Amino acid sequence: MTNPDVDIRPVAGIRLGTAAAGIKYPGRTDLLLIELAEGGSCAGVFTRNSFCAAPVQVARDHLAQGAPRYLLVNSGNANAGTGERGLRDAVACCDAVAALGGCGGERVLPFSTGVIGEPLPVELLCNALPAALASLCEDGWQAAARAIMTTDTVPKLASREVQTSAGSLVVTGIAKGSGMIRPDMATMLAYVATDAAVSQPLLQRCLEQAVAPSFNAITVDGDTSTNDACMLLASGASGCPAIADESDEAYQALCEAVTEVCMELARAIVKDGEGATKLVTVAVEGAASIEEAKGVAYTIAHSPLVKTALFASDPNWGRILAAVGRGGVEGLDISRVEIWLDDVCIVREGGRFSGYTEEAGQEVMSRDELTIRVDLGRGEIRTEVLTCDLSYDYVRINAEYRT
Amino acid sequence: MTNPDVDIRPVAGIRLGTAAAGIKYPGRTDLLLIELAEGGSCAGVFTRNSFCAAPVQVARDHLAQGAPRYLLVNSGNANAGTGERGLRDAVACCDAVAALGGCGGERVLPFSTGVIGEPLPVELLCNALPAALASLCEDGWQAAARAIMTTDTVPKLASREVQTSAGSLVVTGIAKGSGMIRPDMATMLAYVATDAAVSQPLLQRCLEQAVAPSFNAITVDGDTSTNDACMLLASGASGCPAIADESDEAYQALCEAVTEVCMELARAIVKDGEGATKLVTVAVEGAASIEEAKGVAYTIAHSPLVKTALFASDPNWGRILAAVGRGGVEGLDISRVEIWLDDVCIVREGGRFSGYTEEAGQEVMSRDELTIRVDLGRGEIRTEVLTCDLSYDYVRINAEYRT
Repeated sequence: MTNPDVDIRPVAGIRLGTAAAGIKYPGRTDLLLIELAEGGSCAGVFTRNSFCAAPVQVARDHLAQGAPRYLLVNSGNANAGTGERGLRDAVACCDAVAALGGCGGERVLPFSTGVIGEPLPVELLCNALPAALASLCEDGWQAAARAIMTTDTVPKLASREVQTSAGSLVVTGIAKGSGMIRPDMATMLAYVATDAAVSQPLLQRCLEQAVAPSFNAITVDGDTSTNDACMLLASGASGCPAIADESDEAYQALCEAVTEVCMELARAIVKDGEGATKLVTVAVEGAASIEEAKGVAYTIAHSPLVKTALFASDPNWGRILAAVGRGGVEGLDISRVEIWLDDVCIVREGGRFSGYTEEAGQEVMSRDELTIRVDLGRGEIRTEVLTCDLSYDYVRINAEYRT
Repeated sequence: MTNPDVDIRPVAGIRLGTAAAGIKYPGRTDLLLIELAEGGSCAGVFTRNSFCAAPVQVARDHLAQGAPRYLLVNSGNANAGTGERGLRDAVACCDAVAALGGCGGERVLPFSTGVIGEPLPVELLCNALPAALASLCEDGWQAAARAIMTTDTVPKLASREVQTSAGSLVVTGIAKGSGMIRPDMATMLAYVATDAAVSQPLLQRCLEQAVAPSFNAITVDGDTSTNDACMLLASGASGCPAIADESDEAYQALCEAVTEVCMELARAIVKDGEGATKLVTVAVEGAASIEEAKGVAYTIAHSPLVKTALFASDPNWGRILAAVGRGGVEGLDISRVEIWLDDVCIVREGGRFSGYTEEAGQEVMSRDELTIRVDLGRGEIRTEVLTCDLSYDYVRINAEYRT
């Protein structure tokens, strides 16, 4: 799934170039430039963190002004918590790209990821732009996925090709993210592109429906980043006719492929969660509302006690039960609640299920991938959240980061 | 503060006895019996976790029926998630105490702490009751504080003597708790007693105002326990006249002393938080409402990234800023936000304060006790939450617990 060697299809009309700007480490490829064909469209969703980073503010502003030509991404520095200077720095980088690319600065969207609170080294970054521009090519996806990594241990790519009656469409995407992951709109930098011809409003709708069950349903540590952004580019270079509206069969096919690519990238992020050893789906069903389903699912997914029990492969289901109980459901009738580990029922009628054995629970908890399923017995609503365990390595990575 | 050798004043009319029932480990003192003088009064606050444990349900029910004589506390088994059987077991233990003590079963309140989901070993527990009863004495506080420990590394006691115009009153209390700490009403087992003569409704009010800034303002891991309870006993044995009402000067003095004892015990719990190396006050001020102040304070206090930075003594204030930004404040104007580490200003006007130096931040972060102070610049409301850092040992303790 996170295998970088999977077949990644290039997207006609999208070129990617990388360079080593020396932003945090000398010699490390830390700069990515994505070029969108003239006439293409671009959609985006951004973090809702109030302290959203300078590049997020500038990207949102530039996106609103029209048709972007370039996306500029750097790792090693988040340009967040940098005040007015951060905004000026982000705009300066856009202008530098624009000068080289022969377009207006408002047609460049900036993105940054890395440490918060340090000034962006604009000069280093701009010095590397000619190299990034010179390396632009349609086969640049693998290098691009590596250029945006920070604490990620593997590059994250996904790709689909879908057939429509009018011809075939390609959807390819990359993402980065490993810690500070609890996207509240999108996740820490994901870029998905297609060669379909789609208007911006339609593309935006397509992106939003794809993000909801993917990037917006994952959590590593509950910490929503200041720099989250997920962008969807459409070059229109497929040769297929432009998608007319939502009822278009090609739109449905495109949405499906974009959602699949987003799901695959989102899973890859959680699987590569800082220190993660397990990929855990928390499924809450039988809820009376989506709010209560999400409340319970995130309470379980964020519980340090549940996460350390998962790390230890310990079927300490009392911790899951305690998390359900504090999950914010008013008037929860615990006699109707059921809790399952994969196919093993552990809680029924307010207590341990009579058929439960520690061995059966132990066996499921030892799996690399498992589902904690809770039935609240109150209604028909269900939701899923993807998360991981909490290990020594999470503490090590985050205690040592920066030092 | 958590020094068990501090001067702990016995409370006239309150006797404590302990015994080793062998509930989890053979030979470990794991049973506590507290006897309240005939005619005394008792107040309590309990967890709001929907999956509240069987003893919590029985204690709440028995407390409502009248004047308790005995509180029975066991460690090593929480009797939670045990369904109907758990309720029968809790009642059986009460009845056994009642038979030995010569009172009705409804005058005994049961409490349990330990692993969730295992049946309570009623027979072992009842076999040890005669020994607990035989050891009842007014000097039993130190032994009592030890009997209720689970992952606690130190016993937790606090004591005050206050002078009123009618004579002096004593307030002494014990508590246990180290993990699964984010009380939502009271914390994992605290018992405070006074020799004042107070009616139950007044005593209940006194307890509730004392719990709000103490046990209800601490968090180790955000996991609200199924077994939280905080009880306040008043024996009336001081010889001072009965407290008439809330305007009574002695009532004010009592409330102050009870609050101080609760604060001291609450601090001791966080300081002994699982794996904790630092005691951190998160103070949020300038909020427009108490909800938004608490929202931001708990978001910081629960952030795994902030907690691991604290463990590493790393002034990685970007993580604090990111937590403030996702703290749920609608329309937060980040240019008005200030963030301080003790007396060092780190964030002002949306970015790093110009006078901030990494050395100054580093110095504060290295302290054993420190305050993260956030001014939201929106109003006059302030709140404080006490928490600790997240270390390797938290993961070790919770990955190894039960195994």
